[in-house]
Amino acid sequence: MLKGVTCRQSYSYSSTASRHLQRAFPTSSTYSLRPTSRPLLHATHKHYSTTAEWPYIYRREPSPTMAPQLDSYFKTVDDLSDHFIGRLRDAVAIPSISAETERRGDVVKMGMFLKSQLEALGAYMEARPLGRQPGKDIDLPPAIIGRYPAKKDDTKRTVLVYGHYDVQPADVTDGWNTEPFKLTIDKNDRMWGRGSTDDKGPVLGWVNVIEAHKKAGVPFPVNLLMCFEGMEESGSEGLDDFITAECKPGKFFADTEAVCISDNYWLGTKQPCLTYGLRGVSAFGIEISGPKSDLHSGVYGGTVQEPMTDLIRVMATLVDGDGKILIPGINELVAPMTEDEKSLYKDIAFSVDEYQEGIGAKTTIFPDKENTLQHRWRYPSLSLHGIEGAFSGEGVKTVIPRKVVGKFSIRTVPDMDLQKVTDLTVAHCNSVFKKLGSKNTAKTECLHDGRWWLASPRHWNFTAAAKATEKVYGVKPDMTREGGSIPVTLTFEEGTKKNVLLLPMGTGTDGAHSANEKLDKRNYIEGVKLLGAYLHYVSEEPMN
Amino acid sequence: MLKGVTCRQSYSYSSTASRHLQRAFPTSSTYSLRPTSRPLLHATHKHYSTTAEWPYIYRREPSPTMAPQLDSYFKTVDDLSDHFIGRLRDAVAIPSISAETERRGDVVKMGMFLKSQLEALGAYMEARPLGRQPGKDIDLPPAIIGRYPAKKDDTKRTVLVYGHYDVQPADVTDGWNTEPFKLTIDKNDRMWGRGSTDDKGPVLGWVNVIEAHKKAGVPFPVNLLMCFEGMEESGSEGLDDFITAECKPGKFFADTEAVCISDNYWLGTKQPCLTYGLRGVSAFGIEISGPKSDLHSGVYGGTVQEPMTDLIRVMATLVDGDGKILIPGINELVAPMTEDEKSLYKDIAFSVDEYQEGIGAKTTIFPDKENTLQHRWRYPSLSLHGIEGAFSGEGVKTVIPRKVVGKFSIRTVPDMDLQKVTDLTVAHCNSVFKKLGSKNTAKTECLHDGRWWLASPRHWNFTAAAKATEKVYGVKPDMTREGGSIPVTLTFEEGTKKNVLLLPMGTGTDGAHSANEKLDKRNYIEGVKLLGAYLHYVSEEPMN
Ligand SMILES: [Zn+2]
Ligand SMILES: [Zn+2]
Repeated sequence: MLKGVTCRQSYSYSSTASRHLQRAFPTSSTYSLRPTSRPLLHATHKHYSTTAEWPYIYRREPSPTMAPQLDSYFKTVDDLSDHFIGRLRDAVAIPSISAETERRGDVVKMGMFLKSQLEALGAYMEARPLGRQPGKDIDLPPAIIGRYPAKKDDTKRTVLVYGHYDVQPADVTDGWNTEPFKLTIDKNDRMWGRGSTDDKGPVLGWVNVIEAHKKAGVPFPVNLLMCFEGMEESGSEGLDDFITAECKPGKFFADTEAVCISDNYWLGTKQPCLTYGLRGVSAFGIEISGPKSDLHSGVYGGTVQEPMTDLIRVMATLVDGDGKILIPGINELVAPMTEDEKSLYKDIAFSVDEYQEGIGAKTTIFPDKENTLQHRWRYPSLSLHGIEGAFSGEGVKTVIPRKVVGKFSIRTVPDMDLQKVTDLTVAHCNSVFKKLGSKNTAKTECLHDGRWWLASPRHWNFTAAAKATEKVYGVKPDMTREGGSIPVTLTFEEGTKKNVLLLPMGTGTDGAHSANEKLDKRNYIEGVKLLGAYLHYVSEEPMN
Repeated sequence: MLKGVTCRQSYSYSSTASRHLQRAFPTSSTYSLRPTSRPLLHATHKHYSTTAEWPYIYRREPSPTMAPQLDSYFKTVDDLSDHFIGRLRDAVAIPSISAETERRGDVVKMGMFLKSQLEALGAYMEARPLGRQPGKDIDLPPAIIGRYPAKKDDTKRTVLVYGHYDVQPADVTDGWNTEPFKLTIDKNDRMWGRGSTDDKGPVLGWVNVIEAHKKAGVPFPVNLLMCFEGMEESGSEGLDDFITAECKPGKFFADTEAVCISDNYWLGTKQPCLTYGLRGVSAFGIEISGPKSDLHSGVYGGTVQEPMTDLIRVMATLVDGDGKILIPGINELVAPMTEDEKSLYKDIAFSVDEYQEGIGAKTTIFPDKENTLQHRWRYPSLSLHGIEGAFSGEGVKTVIPRKVVGKFSIRTVPDMDLQKVTDLTVAHCNSVFKKLGSKNTAKTECLHDGRWWLASPRHWNFTAAAKATEKVYGVKPDMTREGGSIPVTLTFEEGTKKNVLLLPMGTGTDGAHSANEKLDKRNYIEGVKLLGAYLHYVSEEPMN
């Protein structure tokens, strides 16, 4: 699931990023549309794109050998669907909540479940220890890594897939309509349970892909490398260094030729998508301090300069109600919108009405689809999150806090240089505070930052995924970005130096991280087909 | 100890208050200074006032019978001092923390300890149940009320005294240098322990007064009514209605002629004071809401109007860094400063340097004593306390809160009408929000208010206390107000319709509510003399 913040400190990326940006929006492309004969599975053709901007290249002829292989594979997936659902039921029953240290045993149990399922199918698996959890007296859950087939076939491409086997906390009292750790399927074939869509369904998807190939007698099309972690919902502690190390020559992930991450969601509920961009995030704290301890506002109010007063006055200068960032120079760092890029947004399956329905309010800034998507994906935003050190409970506590830290973050986009973002932000806050003429002490700093990411959707990795999507769902996927960040994406890109694809299985209403998380049975079973077909198309794409 | 906020709803008090204000600062007064022959007990004469504004009236001649009686009483107090300290030790050992329901048994135990100590001295005592604690499945601790002598002497005046036998929470890990529930006396005769000064020392002071009179064979000078509560540190649940009912004709407190509350502190460490005024407090919440649930700032940032952005912009218009209230019309409600009143401040024992030392910072607004005291006591102030619903933890959580409530409060003073304060504040917030042009929803409301209080320091109740102070400490007390509120003061004033006096025992550095709370042995023992002498002077004051 999307991450709020990462600790990444990579400022020197803008030249590579610009290259990516250019590749992402080619001014011309050559391709042909391949007619599909597969019936639609509840999908609609509403947003079937035929514009020249379609950003992946089709081969002119379908592969002569592909069709019968996939048909046999798909049929086997359908035949095994109850078995696959049983596997998800077993996984959901393990409450592998990484945020709760008392559940660490369950997280490890889930990792071992995954490992043994894959070993039973003939994969080579390892559970790699990641050391102690920083600040806690407990081991991190292991990274479960593996290879299928167990012995590498040098004639085939090597694809690295990632997912996580830990889940968000869940308690039936949080508003769940079902037991969160008991997979419950309703009459609309929605499968309710914690982790169903985030991320146990997609992770087991890869297990199911292997099993269906075996049972169908279809040769496995690639060398599959796997990396499954158990701390994703708790900051992926320890994973970055591990991945970076294992991408080095001679190490486990060294032969990777493409990366596929299945840990995000369709934009809506009907239209599949491939995701090629993420915003970054730079989080800041403005700390203002005065007295050595909190003061009683009755005793001291009116006689001391209050840090809260200063802080609120500084925070009020950062952004306006329509989301315009007021820090001088920030908006100038953003790559200008080209006409080519602009034209991409009009065909995306997205409705502002549905967006407002999801939010439950008409408080959106823009009335139209294009502006809404652009400000979600390719323009920066600034959100004020809260204040540490101030009173935050119900009712009233008439305290003068001694030290308060205002927290806000800026979502960053191409071509924003993170160091410049920090420098401009700190300078602005310092300047505003200075003008207040306060005797208190102020310090603004970047607490964390993580770079934005933009992949080339013309890479064969995306082309393969697009073909697979069309094969399974009968529609071309929308090419989307996301407003949030998935830090491991950058880690894999930097470690492998290969193209990274985000290939979602679930829909935008699955409620990852909420009560009543679910995965539609259709998305799970068709998703297994999608992941398998993707590997087949990967094996046949020309390396361009 | 001072209260942040009360739920009192009395708006119709300003005419009485104006009368009080006039009486408080007479333009002329007739009195004579009575020379004292008592040696000073570590006190200094530094602030011995001789100005015409001295606000209480001395009798021209000392009472012919008073001196020998008090001398005998004082000597007995000194003789019993170890016994009195032992009594305080026993009381501190009972962790009567009203905020922790699992300590409720200890709170009740402390009430029963107090009751039995007084019964052993011949007082008539009752433990009155106050019902269930609202919102908790537990009984409130009883009000311990009593009368001494057990049978009323109709030839004597009747004084009602108040204190509380519950304490603030305390744990040695909070930074205590000693066990908080073990009274520990250091070489400087400071007695460390939770409740030593707030409020077990003063409460036991009344027990000691009775015992010393009995042991000295000095007739008790008044009818003493007692009201000791066990929920003061937790909002005095249930007490207001109880007091109001018991002040009615024929009820327990019906015969009260004056009230004395010993639950505040000297301004500094050396100069005793009597307190005749308190600020009120009106607490507000600005609630701004938009989406139906919290949003991920990566996914939604830049596309929705964020309640936090609006709230911060409204909060920034309430007060400036030098404490000036920016809500139009508020400052106009304040009674103008007269020359008479102004002259009162110059003789108060108070040092801005020491004040800054106490705060631990040089961030005070005013460089001089007079302005500092005036803005603490007789001018309003506005403090921003915090935001409910926003992120308040360490680190960063990149959330867009769905609903946030900004909390602030205004300390009110004569002649501010509370309804006008609320009306002006709500109108201002509404007007600022409207100018923002936001689609979010805003609502500002007064969450609680409690009226300011101003007593007449020329009343015989204050005169008696001033004489007692001079008798015991060898200096005239400073006449002070406090910036905070002690809601029970108003309850007693309204219930009895009699003069209420705040007569502190401890010093301004005792650290009530902090770790390392203490009471100086001197203040405890001299305090017992002070309370006893006060009752003697009460009995001799002409009723004016
Ligand atoms: Zn996830
Ligand atoms: Zn108290």
